Amino acid sequence: MTTAPSALPLTFSAEVAKARESGAAIVALESTIITHGMPYPQNLEVARQVEQDIRDAGAVPATIAVIRGALHIGLDDDQLSDLAQAKDVAKLSRADMAVCIASGGTGATTVAATMIAANLAGIEVFATGGIGGVHKGAEESFDISADLMELAQTPVTVIAAGAKAILDVPKTLEVLETQGVPVITVGQDSFPAFWSAGSELQSPLRLDDAGAIAKAHRTRAAMGLPGGQLVANPIPADEEIPAAELAPIIAQAQSEADAQGVHGKGVTPFLLQRIFELTEGRSLTANIALVRNNARLGAKIAANLVNLPR
Amino acid sequence: MTTAPSALPLTFSAEVAKARESGAAIVALESTIITHGMPYPQNLEVARQVEQDIRDAGAVPATIAVIRGALHIGLDDDQLSDLAQAKDVAKLSRADMAVCIASGGTGATTVAATMIAANLAGIEVFATGGIGGVHKGAEESFDISADLMELAQTPVTVIAAGAKAILDVPKTLEVLETQGVPVITVGQDSFPAFWSAGSELQSPLRLDDAGAIAKAHRTRAAMGLPGGQLVANPIPADEEIPAAELAPIIAQAQSEADAQGVHGKGVTPFLLQRIFELTEGRSLTANIALVRNNARLGAKIAANLVNLPR
Amino acid sequence: MTTAPSALPLTFSAEVAKARESGAAIVALESTIITHGMPYPQNLEVARQVEQDIRDAGAVPATIAVIRGALHIGLDDDQLSDLAQAKDVAKLSRADMAVCIASGGTGATTVAATMIAANLAGIEVFATGGIGGVHKGAEESFDISADLMELAQTPVTVIAAGAKAILDVPKTLEVLETQGVPVITVGQDSFPAFWSAGSELQSPLRLDDAGAIAKAHRTRAAMGLPGGQLVANPIPADEEIPAAELAPIIAQAQSEADAQGVHGKGVTPFLLQRIFELTEGRSLTANIALVRNNARLGAKIAANLVNLPR
Ligand SMILES: [Mn+2]
Ligand SMILES: [Mn+2]
Ligand SMILES: [Mn+2]
Repeated sequence: MTTAPSALPLTFSAEVAKARESGAAIVALESTIITHGMPYPQNLEVARQVEQDIRDAGAVPATIAVIRGALHIGLDDDQLSDLAQAKDVAKLSRADMAVCIASGGTGATTVAATMIAANLAGIEVFATGGIGGVHKGAEESFDISADLMELAQTPVTVIAAGAKAILDVPKTLEVLETQGVPVITVGQDSFPAFWSAGSELQSPLRLDDAGAIAKAHRTRAAMGLPGGQLVANPIPADEEIPAAELAPIIAQAQSEADAQGVHGKGVTPFLLQRIFELTEGRSLTANIALVRNNARLGAKIAANLVNLPR
Repeated sequence: MTTAPSALPLTFSAEVAKARESGAAIVALESTIITHGMPYPQNLEVARQVEQDIRDAGAVPATIAVIRGALHIGLDDDQLSDLAQAKDVAKLSRADMAVCIASGGTGATTVAATMIAANLAGIEVFATGGIGGVHKGAEESFDISADLMELAQTPVTVIAAGAKAILDVPKTLEVLETQGVPVITVGQDSFPAFWSAGSELQSPLRLDDAGAIAKAHRTRAAMGLPGGQLVANPIPADEEIPAAELAPIIAQAQSEADAQGVHGKGVTPFLLQRIFELTEGRSLTANIALVRNNARLGAKIAANLVNLPR
Repeated sequence: MTTAPSALPLTFSAEVAKARESGAAIVALESTIITHGMPYPQNLEVARQVEQDIRDAGAVPATIAVIRGALHIGLDDDQLSDLAQAKDVAKLSRADMAVCIASGGTGATTVAATMIAANLAGIEVFATGGIGGVHKGAEESFDISADLMELAQTPVTVIAAGAKAILDVPKTLEVLETQGVPVITVGQDSFPAFWSAGSELQSPLRLDDAGAIAKAHRTRAAMGLPGGQLVANPIPADEEIPAAELAPIIAQAQSEADAQGVHGKGVTPFLLQRIFELTEGRSLTANIALVRNNARLGAKIAANLVNLPR
């Protein structure tokens, strides 16, 4: 599926513009990890590092954000640095991205919004940490991330280390199956659990090399199927927090949230902060490691796609 | 996004045909409010009044209905009058509209069906009372209005006073977020509650003028996003039934429904009738006021769209 | 809606290729009923019989499967025979079909995958036994078949004897309504219950002849609605197992599954096997009868479509 040229003006960084001209491999990156994932200056250091990982693996990074109403595909270092220090930046998804652009606002892109932007720019691969999913208690709250519906409809291959382990992962896999999203785990049979490499959940699909994933992406497009693929890339074994060790910590954080009456949009930040504290910072170290690992795999998949005819 | 010409023959009223030729602003209106919302002749009076409100605000009304197998975009006064007196008219949604047309039937259009028809006719704005949503108890019944999915996929901006307060509004907002639908409240931060201007629920987005809403609509289309926007327009303060006053009435109606074993498709009409009785008709007066208020805002948004390039 | 030529190479059987050239009526058939529905050689005999039923009714059968990476539209007798004896064949749905093709694998197509393939081949009608739906307990498990979402988005008319009665049929009908899928029962007002002709559930729509169903299909396409139609065709009265007789058997099978801790993907095969045993094979006889009945109706609808302009 060739992408129609975007009717919305896009602002390309010099590096991405050049890559587009030469037909080089490009990997999209989201920006909420910068604005909402870590404190300054660590967020800026990690953002630069992940971009460099992509370059080292032979592709060009395109960090995506909305800045004063312009949809940026690729940020230069000044823009990255400004975004890393900005306050009160909106967190954009499919529902609010157009309003932010139309209003001249600034916002960081979640998985859903980054997929939309990547697709507008003709970028087929996007590396992130973990996708959103079905929240625990969603059978009562109906709280389900728009990321899942985006995977069902926008033709971008998303590399993640699974869904964050604080979510209801079995229900997340069910929704992905219902919505027809390929869930492809790399190098193992079990679906990875973000900070932990493995889980007790079987992955629906397994492919072990970037070439096979690229070929599946192209086949899906040739079939006219509108959606993307979720590539579940386990955190490297020497950087994981084993599931057996993490499970009681997640459970403790969850019961603290319940006890303190934390609910709605407050739950995820609360849990992530408590897991950070209870693991003495290891959850953040693991998070950085898995994002970098995903960026490297994304670069390989993008490089393979360059060699496959559309 | 320019709309492809409809392959289905559409029947335009003289007034709408003329507006299309001259490029005038057009606002779609649904017809279930006529056939299922009020008794004759009040339904006809209100339908005429709402059409006139749109004309007074500088746009052309296009009431939509299926009459003997023809999809009408705009009704003349005889057709409006006939429809207002017709018996056993079907209530059409996405699932049954084509069968009705193919079978030569007559049907009134719900929010979903009106959006489909408006889009076929190239009309970008539609004013109604309240959208359908997630029904109370949907965690067990799975009873969720097709209106929500329509907002996710059909590029029409729908002006409503929120979702009817007898629905599970928090779950309705969750589904809209999951499906990527912009929910834009006008002039206040809280999401309106149909008969009441405010609620305890925060609106996901807020825009205070018709021009900004029109611009967001066009931006969304330029991004290739297929869906529409829900514009939540609070009932004017002097015509509302305050939430504190209405809440116990809704609760009473609900417990009467439970006690009498009313279920399924019978619940909504039962609740609306009991609320009408318990408010001594004020619920209907408020309903008319909010529809007219939405029609006026719709006309302003449509007028703004005329001046924005596609 | 005319279908764009598929960018994926399709492999047509000689019979289907000839039918395409001459513009003859074609009916798609799924292949999981062959690989996962019955033991060899009964599965082969039934597959041949159903194909012949379609020919006898004036159309051409196109059994669909992925064989060593090729998407086959129509199988010759050797291929049918090989598939009927193959071991460990994947069961393909929207999520995994492209991976199977890209990897050179072999797989049988479920309802969702068969709809996708039929649409790629320009085939508008597909006959099967029963569609997947909402599983019992889905309010907790979120286990909902991708078939329902496929009906919402792929323009193929699917003839089935309802949804398998081991599913939560009321919730299945709710999801179909939310997703805007026409559910059209033939010849009666109640929605059929697979092995039983009737049920206590009202069908949303009713059309009694193949011509009206074909016309509704074309009208839906002319309206630009992307999805298909579910045609619920009751099992012939003299071949049904009456609902009153079957209900306690299904309940017994279900409580045995619960007692033995069967869960997840194991439940459906367990229930079908126990129902087969408890009915002393009558469930299979009924299943074959209803598939043949659906094939004959599919042929009539396809023949009607040939005579309706696109
Ligand atoms: Mn949410
Ligand atoms: Mn409903
Ligand atoms: Mn399932």
